Amino acid sequence: MSVDSPPHGENNCPHGDKNKAIMKMLFYHKCRKPSIRVIHSVKVGISLVLVSLLYLLDPLFEDIGENAMWAIMTVVVVFEFTAGATLSKGINRAIGTILGGGLGCLAAILGDKFEGTGNAIIVGTSVFIIGAAATYSRLVPRIKRRYDYGCMIFILTFNLVAVSGVRADKVVALAKVRLSTIGMGFAVCIFISLLVFPIWASDQLHDSTASKFEKLASCISECLEEYFSIPNKEENKPKKADVSGCKAVFHSKSTDESLANFAKWEPWHGKFGLSYPWEKYLEIGETLRELAALILSLRVCIQSSKQPELDQRDAIKEGCELAGLSMVWILRELGESILTMKQCRSKTTITPKLQTIKLELSKLTLLPMPMNKGLKDYKDETHHLGTSSFIFLLMEITH
Amino acid sequence: MSVDSPPHGENNCPHGDKNKAIMKMLFYHKCRKPSIRVIHSVKVGISLVLVSLLYLLDPLFEDIGENAMWAIMTVVVVFEFTAGATLSKGINRAIGTILGGGLGCLAAILGDKFEGTGNAIIVGTSVFIIGAAATYSRLVPRIKRRYDYGCMIFILTFNLVAVSGVRADKVVALAKVRLSTIGMGFAVCIFISLLVFPIWASDQLHDSTASKFEKLASCISECLEEYFSIPNKEENKPKKADVSGCKAVFHSKSTDESLANFAKWEPWHGKFGLSYPWEKYLEIGETLRELAALILSLRVCIQSSKQPELDQRDAIKEGCELAGLSMVWILRELGESILTMKQCRSKTTITPKLQTIKLELSKLTLLPMPMNKGLKDYKDETHHLGTSSFIFLLMEITH
Repeated sequence: MSVDSPPHGENNCPHGDKNKAIMKMLFYHKCRKPSIRVIHSVKVGISLVLVSLLYLLDPLFEDIGENAMWAIMTVVVVFEFTAGATLSKGINRAIGTILGGGLGCLAAILGDKFEGTGNAIIVGTSVFIIGAAATYSRLVPRIKRRYDYGCMIFILTFNLVAVSGVRADKVVALAKVRLSTIGMGFAVCIFISLLVFPIWASDQLHDSTASKFEKLASCISECLEEYFSIPNKEENKPKKADVSGCKAVFHSKSTDESLANFAKWEPWHGKFGLSYPWEKYLEIGETLRELAALILSLRVCIQSSKQPELDQRDAIKEGCELAGLSMVWILRELGESILTMKQCRSKTTITPKLQTIKLELSKLTLLPMPMNKGLKDYKDETHHLGTSSFIFLLMEITH
Repeated sequence: MSVDSPPHGENNCPHGDKNKAIMKMLFYHKCRKPSIRVIHSVKVGISLVLVSLLYLLDPLFEDIGENAMWAIMTVVVVFEFTAGATLSKGINRAIGTILGGGLGCLAAILGDKFEGTGNAIIVGTSVFIIGAAATYSRLVPRIKRRYDYGCMIFILTFNLVAVSGVRADKVVALAKVRLSTIGMGFAVCIFISLLVFPIWASDQLHDSTASKFEKLASCISECLEEYFSIPNKEENKPKKADVSGCKAVFHSKSTDESLANFAKWEPWHGKFGLSYPWEKYLEIGETLRELAALILSLRVCIQSSKQPELDQRDAIKEGCELAGLSMVWILRELGESILTMKQCRSKTTITPKLQTIKLELSKLTLLPMPMNKGLKDYKDETHHLGTSSFIFLLMEITH
């Protein structure tokens, strides 16, 4: 299964196809979003119907009874958007239930040795201590990130088992039936989530990382355009650069981290192996966020009231535009090489390009021009350069 | 109640107390974190014990029976760290349960008109349609942000009621008991969360916004120190600026948004009125994140290999340090005025300070110096200036 993401070959596609590939990528991103939402919704609907059959079909209901409720609850709560998230929540739920159930049984047995009020005091005290301790652990960032849901289920199961142990003498039998229905719900979730049109967190992370390069590249070119374009006389206001893409990259940290977290739970599939380096994606994301910060600074700088008049900017126009276009080209190249998982054409094309940009920009500094004015733009571009080369090095490590 | 945050008066504290106030603020932030975690854990423990009494005390158990389980579940699931989050989850749960229960009853009644397989088909189809539609709505960002949990509970309740309606003819009675136990659990949560040492999301947002100013101020001073300090000969490596505070501000968007979201649910308390402008806090946060981006760019710029030698930097040292210190002072002043909710001493002290910085920095540009080297630093400081004045204007609007 999981055929919706076929592995890509190592063959170099010809140079002219690049724009087509980028357009395809953008199109893919825009159109894909609603359709995977629909797929996910339909999958949840099917799982709910499957699990409701435990109630609806007479022979099944006779075996399981009211406990079928737990299967429904498991599906509603565990079925998440991506396969990794579903797996992570399901495993958390299973471990939390088993640990909580075991400890709850112990507390109930311990309480059983006393009678009446003594029993209630023992159970109440254990509920307080375990509840408070587990709640505290949920607030520790490291545990919260990966095991928050497991801790919650642990508290819930412990409480239910410990207090109902006071009443029912058949805690173990009850736990068995509940565990098996939870297991059924989980099995339905896993089956539907992983095998029917799976939505992988790893694919999402991969695609979003690749699209970030494109976003930054278009921001750079928009900024250059804003800086050098002649304002339209009819509209009488200069073109404003659209930096929303840049801001989206800027704020992508938490999304990236949760996707990487879920991707780690996912089994081998499609183009990804078992030990795929998800940390590298986070590193690339971090570097791109730094680059986004630089681009946002460049934007602030462009809009400053201290910028020279348009005709004075002409002196640096050609050089800046050349350097800017090269940077845009490099970013798109890197984004595409990540998207298609091909070796980046590093040595042959990108390195000389970077050299050219550096040369071009250092030529600009030698030009006589109104001091410390147009220069500002140059300086920020140099920073980009530094960061671009950093990213470039990072890419070389990754691929 | 809620006396732990007394409203501050409008009296101006003397100038010399500022450092003390800042130290207190930092101390408060460092020490407060573990203690409020403990308070929260103890509160959850107490709520769990209270709700377990429904099981443990004989007279109560006789009335409610196994349905006491729903009260425990409500406490475990609804009790969140801040009062606002607890309220938001509780209200979501209540509305989701009522809507889901109502629609579930309708589906069960409709199904009842048919017999055998017809019934199962009607119920199964409605489970599929409602489940898929509600799941789709959970993926819409605007609904996800505020009503995600309510939608989940809606799906869960609808399913449970619709499928068990096929079996039990007394759906309405069952729903009544469950709703009342859920209500009991919710009442315990609200009582403990709001009235016993409440942890307000609004306080958290307020404090974190104020502390951001301090973080940015210390980053600016660290960067200045890194740029101008003479490397220690014994250690033989230059001081590295610590920009972790700046990065924390940089990545604070999602935390801020969820806190503001929860703050809106909170009732009148302490220093905040009913219609406190939480959007303003988000705006301030956004501006501070832009400033953080500029500071990070400044850092990149400082570490560039194109920086001049230390002795060449001396020419701009005095002016830059003067401007930098003033910026640090202004940021701390603004942070303190937000923390204590006092009118900012804008007209009298901050405006002249900003004028001085601008003057100081423009003097620097007139100095003869190795072109386009030390200048870089100056330029970034100018951007800070622009943003600082922007923040300053924003503060004037807010207060």
